[in-house]
Amino acid sequence: VVAQIVVVLEPEAGYNNAGTVQGQLSAVSRPGLTCRIGGRTVVLAEGGEQLAERLRATAGVAAVLTPTAGAPLAQREHFPEGTVVDVGGVRLGDGGLAVIAGPCAVESAAQLRAAAVGVRSRGAAALRGGAFKPRSSPYAFQGLGEAGLRLLSEVGQAVRLPVVTEVVDVESLPLVCRHAQMLQIGTRNAQNFSLLRAAGASGLPVLLKRGFGCTVEEWLQAAEYVLREGNGAVVLCERGIRSFENSTRFTLDLGAVAALKRLSHLPVVVDPSHGVGRRQLVRPMALAAAAAGADGLLIDAHPEPDSALCDAAQAIPLDELGAIMVDLRRMMTSLGRRLTTARNEWSPTGSHTALRSPLPARAPVAVG
Amino acid sequence: VVAQIVVVLEPEAGYNNAGTVQGQLSAVSRPGLTCRIGGRTVVLAEGGEQLAERLRATAGVAAVLTPTAGAPLAQREHFPEGTVVDVGGVRLGDGGLAVIAGPCAVESAAQLRAAAVGVRSRGAAALRGGAFKPRSSPYAFQGLGEAGLRLLSEVGQAVRLPVVTEVVDVESLPLVCRHAQMLQIGTRNAQNFSLLRAAGASGLPVLLKRGFGCTVEEWLQAAEYVLREGNGAVVLCERGIRSFENSTRFTLDLGAVAALKRLSHLPVVVDPSHGVGRRQLVRPMALAAAAAGADGLLIDAHPEPDSALCDAAQAIPLDELGAIMVDLRRMMTSLGRRLTTARNEWSPTGSHTALRSPLPARAPVAVG
Amino acid sequence: VVAQIVVVLEPEAGYNNAGTVQGQLSAVSRPGLTCRIGGRTVVLAEGGEQLAERLRATAGVAAVLTPTAGAPLAQREHFPEGTVVDVGGVRLGDGGLAVIAGPCAVESAAQLRAAAVGVRSRGAAALRGGAFKPRSSPYAFQGLGEAGLRLLSEVGQAVRLPVVTEVVDVESLPLVCRHAQMLQIGTRNAQNFSLLRAAGASGLPVLLKRGFGCTVEEWLQAAEYVLREGNGAVVLCERGIRSFENSTRFTLDLGAVAALKRLSHLPVVVDPSHGVGRRQLVRPMALAAAAAGADGLLIDAHPEPDSALCDAAQAIPLDELGAIMVDLRRMMTSLGRRLTTARNEWSPTGSHTALRSPLPARAPVAVG
Amino acid sequence: VVAQIVVVLEPEAGYNNAGTVQGQLSAVSRPGLTCRIGGRTVVLAEGGEQLAERLRATAGVAAVLTPTAGAPLAQREHFPEGTVVDVGGVRLGDGGLAVIAGPCAVESAAQLRAAAVGVRSRGAAALRGGAFKPRSSPYAFQGLGEAGLRLLSEVGQAVRLPVVTEVVDVESLPLVCRHAQMLQIGTRNAQNFSLLRAAGASGLPVLLKRGFGCTVEEWLQAAEYVLREGNGAVVLCERGIRSFENSTRFTLDLGAVAALKRLSHLPVVVDPSHGVGRRQLVRPMALAAAAAGADGLLIDAHPEPDSALCDAAQAIPLDELGAIMVDLRRMMTSLGRRLTTARNEWSPTGSHTALRSPLPARAPVAVG
Repeated sequence: VVAQIVVVLEPEAGYNNAGTVQGQLSAVSRPGLTCRIGGRTVVLAEGGEQLAERLRATAGVAAVLTPTAGAPLAQREHFPEGTVVDVGGVRLGDGGLAVIAGPCAVESAAQLRAAAVGVRSRGAAALRGGAFKPRSSPYAFQGLGEAGLRLLSEVGQAVRLPVVTEVVDVESLPLVCRHAQMLQIGTRNAQNFSLLRAAGASGLPVLLKRGFGCTVEEWLQAAEYVLREGNGAVVLCERGIRSFENSTRFTLDLGAVAALKRLSHLPVVVDPSHGVGRRQLVRPMALAAAAAGADGLLIDAHPEPDSALCDAAQAIPLDELGAIMVDLRRMMTSLGRRLTTARNEWSPTGSHTALRSPLPARAPVAVG
Repeated sequence: VVAQIVVVLEPEAGYNNAGTVQGQLSAVSRPGLTCRIGGRTVVLAEGGEQLAERLRATAGVAAVLTPTAGAPLAQREHFPEGTVVDVGGVRLGDGGLAVIAGPCAVESAAQLRAAAVGVRSRGAAALRGGAFKPRSSPYAFQGLGEAGLRLLSEVGQAVRLPVVTEVVDVESLPLVCRHAQMLQIGTRNAQNFSLLRAAGASGLPVLLKRGFGCTVEEWLQAAEYVLREGNGAVVLCERGIRSFENSTRFTLDLGAVAALKRLSHLPVVVDPSHGVGRRQLVRPMALAAAAAGADGLLIDAHPEPDSALCDAAQAIPLDELGAIMVDLRRMMTSLGRRLTTARNEWSPTGSHTALRSPLPARAPVAVG
Repeated sequence: VVAQIVVVLEPEAGYNNAGTVQGQLSAVSRPGLTCRIGGRTVVLAEGGEQLAERLRATAGVAAVLTPTAGAPLAQREHFPEGTVVDVGGVRLGDGGLAVIAGPCAVESAAQLRAAAVGVRSRGAAALRGGAFKPRSSPYAFQGLGEAGLRLLSEVGQAVRLPVVTEVVDVESLPLVCRHAQMLQIGTRNAQNFSLLRAAGASGLPVLLKRGFGCTVEEWLQAAEYVLREGNGAVVLCERGIRSFENSTRFTLDLGAVAALKRLSHLPVVVDPSHGVGRRQLVRPMALAAAAAGADGLLIDAHPEPDSALCDAAQAIPLDELGAIMVDLRRMMTSLGRRLTTARNEWSPTGSHTALRSPLPARAPVAVG
Repeated sequence: VVAQIVVVLEPEAGYNNAGTVQGQLSAVSRPGLTCRIGGRTVVLAEGGEQLAERLRATAGVAAVLTPTAGAPLAQREHFPEGTVVDVGGVRLGDGGLAVIAGPCAVESAAQLRAAAVGVRSRGAAALRGGAFKPRSSPYAFQGLGEAGLRLLSEVGQAVRLPVVTEVVDVESLPLVCRHAQMLQIGTRNAQNFSLLRAAGASGLPVLLKRGFGCTVEEWLQAAEYVLREGNGAVVLCERGIRSFENSTRFTLDLGAVAALKRLSHLPVVVDPSHGVGRRQLVRPMALAAAAAGADGLLIDAHPEPDSALCDAAQAIPLDELGAIMVDLRRMMTSLGRRLTTARNEWSPTGSHTALRSPLPARAPVAVG
């Protein structure tokens, strides 16, 4: 009989205590995986109820769980402090509001550069952009792939912003890991458990979008697949669910955001762009998400929204992003919170020069 | 052939021009109904396309519509200025944020009095409370009926707040009109067209809740039933829709609020209490609704939430309402808006005395 | 303390035992309402737990319930035998499959007559048709009202079929009762509790459509409002719910039909026409509903579907109805069931003559 | 400019004409992929509008499409004949009704053997069973993996039924292909486009379950990912969608089945077990699915349902499967259709003996 054992140590207990736990495990079974989740040291192991009982009596151990269902590692119950996820120096979940902005898809060096400079100079804390695009139809633009990743990496370094980009399969995961500071799991892969496990094992922070047909409970269980690999750097991203209403593309479920802030210790980010799918509604929904308690926002911004190759209807121009940032800053201050800023120094002039040489000019990719 | 004709006058055109329109109507058909909708004078009539054509050429006429579907009176297209609804001196839709608070159901004089003094002293602009309660089960508490209405009226006057209460059928409409300053149409009657017509004809302002299974389009068409009676004082109230998610009671659709602010000229109010159905989530969702652009909030507040006879799980204590008001005030200011305050002077001490004599002490109604 | 008491008598116990129950009630409270529900005699009363306890000891009493929520009268638990509802001689719920067909809306004498003769001659057991039409938009055709009712009554008698028609408010209920053999409560009034109570009190059989946003549980509670008036002749009608899918107008929930046949003792009818909203899909969904265990079908059939004033897209021509009836008859036989036929003798030739004189020819009502 | 070109040949045109098309392609671009889809020869290529125009003039070419969205290969428009998919000799889509039955998860040799003998002897045409189980929680039983596949393969051969089993990632795809006659793509991977492409490239028939949050349109686009790899053997499987209703586990959308039979040329199968999630409702929903026009059924059947390690609530005992088969056979006959039977001869006695030796008895896998 092989069952899962989750050993949560006391907040102040550290690797010494974990070592003791591991010692006990080694005596009767395989050693476990020591990791940090929700601000605590956790040992993930296998064994029977007898072993669990013995571990409960070990110094520094706060709780020993033997789950057969659910998502105990994702829940706040045993991790009351809340998780802070570090993405290339940007902290998500520390009380601030971090804006991650950029184009839905990387289309060309010129487009990405303009977008990156634009979002950085308006106060975004990280750069988003898709190189692998999971599209409903196989005939729609599927992204630039590896070339897009290289662009993201180069431009991200130039504007000194960490890069968040989507990974769509286990095959391309190592490649994405070389170029990004955070892995995005998209809504259509929200229950692709092989991919979740692999993303967990990569050790990179994971932005886990909610499946548009998934309950909050299933979403936390998906997060559990990442956490169980010993990767505590999971950020949940609400991006709209399916409902009967069709005046917006999806129904942005901010009630779930408020619920999650109580239910889970993981940071919660909101994507108002995909949530409503209409450019004019991004601003009010970005403000609403922040007011509901989100730790960050993921916003589609494009230097020329009308010509975007992907989800053009929801991309906002860079100046609209600027206006949103002004509102957000004021609103956060009024509520005793603040906007999270990028860690690194950067000035538009310098970086623009820096950008010029390493990147060859690329024409936009044709799609038809 | 009898078709509907909607004559919208120019903003500056007034009743003189309406008189000319009526004159033309009288010449060939029945006179129409002159009313004010969306800040404009409108004549609602019947007639054929020939008559419509003639009216289009009349002085002061901005548009003549001959709808056979849809909700032209509810849409912003012909009424760009936006509607301001006056509820006993409190203005909804003027840019401010009005909080309408009180118990879900009137239970007793003591309960209502405590609730009313509590919400008034914390800054609510109007008093809500149900006397006729449409409950899913016939065995659940159905409200105090007429006795509840009298209490609402008396207590509302005592704390000098206008009263918003639900009307559930045409039979009891005259009674409700005698005691309330605004008629609430509940989610289960959102497409009870006979009731909508009667509420429209009453002339009282109408708070029209969204049917929890209704699209935004159907909701505006429901509003159109009220408007077509010549009653321009319609306020839309988002209160959550049905979705597959069950961590909240309903899914509060704030995207619909943002969409409606562009689509319609009518004020939009949000009921976070019914929307999420969980006390702990009212505060973040109230803030989110305000940030999304709502003109007002409808909040269940109860002096003793745990013993509420109706929807106890979602009622917040009065002190939580106070904390929400503080946050809302700060947030609105930061966004260049303000909280709407009650029109009339009132002091807790004076009113408390005033309240004491006219109302007999009533024991809570038993339910089992 | 006034609580609800439901006294269910043993199957074999009749009005004598009910008299004893009433006697006990009269001794301590108001007498109750004796009625027949689910094949049993039931007394609906008010009183406390002491009284309930005493009634439990009374001869012939099977169960005494004191509900404070839910829908005990609608559930099979205490009424295992199943209800048979008689609609003008047609029995719903006796194991057969009854087809109720006709136009969505009564448009003219000629149209209704052609439809009635058409559905009768093809084997329908009852005639449907709307005189009061609750339409989402106030500008859409609202039905012929009283004139439509008179037509229904006359044509129904001529073809010797009972008439099922919708009642939309308490005001017009007496009028509808004079002309129909069964009251339909539409999906938009599925939680109009005042109307449900009045329909219950009318004593006529009630066809209760499911609210398109209502759960099965809420639907049974709506039925309970009718049952509690002492009216056991309730038939549930599944007509599609709201979901995210939009290739059909609604999502026909046949799983709910199968679930209800176990959960409730009331007959269940399915409306495939509104459920899918597309003419070509009525046939497969009619067959599927019958196979799922439905006791009847409600089908929109029109002599000239393309020119129907209401829901033209879903109306089937009369010959398609004929083809469906052939399939249904074969399928029911194969499953050991049968098609329910109209009770009265009728021949197309005779009735056509009979029809000619009493009904004046009416031109279709104009709508634009 | 590189665009997609789809060349559909006339029904009678064969590989000779395809050769001509390929010749034209080779002259100006890479050769295309010649394959059979919907009973027609299709060439999938890349090129511009000029090339498309030239191909339109080629002998035997019925249509040349240049899609930039949608799912042209999945739609009936260009493939009116309908697809028949051969799964180890069992034909899906030829007008018959094929029942694919077996346990949700392979648990042990004894369990699978009993299930396989049970479903075969009751008339199933193929054996289902999961070796890789994608479970919402990482702590739930995840399947026996490769050992389960080997069991499926051995037992399938013993009872002479083709095996349908789920593939959950690209890594394990070659392994699954070695043991199964048909690949199942589960609801959670319904938009895992990398997996869909790989399944397409495998050449094996694919059973594509609908994503529980996906529209019919998205489902067909998912099928298009498989078809575009030149694999025309795609079967769609409706298994219930998410809705607000919770008396069943999902909402089985039989309207989508009826709609798909017109919209697409691909066979459609229904999984009533997952659709309703309750054992008692499998029978009526299996009948309803067949009546709605399904080409097959996927049914969870287990020798000891109550002890099933996966989805026990919905597994039916083998005798219930037998009763369903009897009903289905009668019903199909009454509608002019028939039950599809397994191709190969088999007798319970013989195969049981054959089974005994090669498979070691395995104890059920423990999960706690």
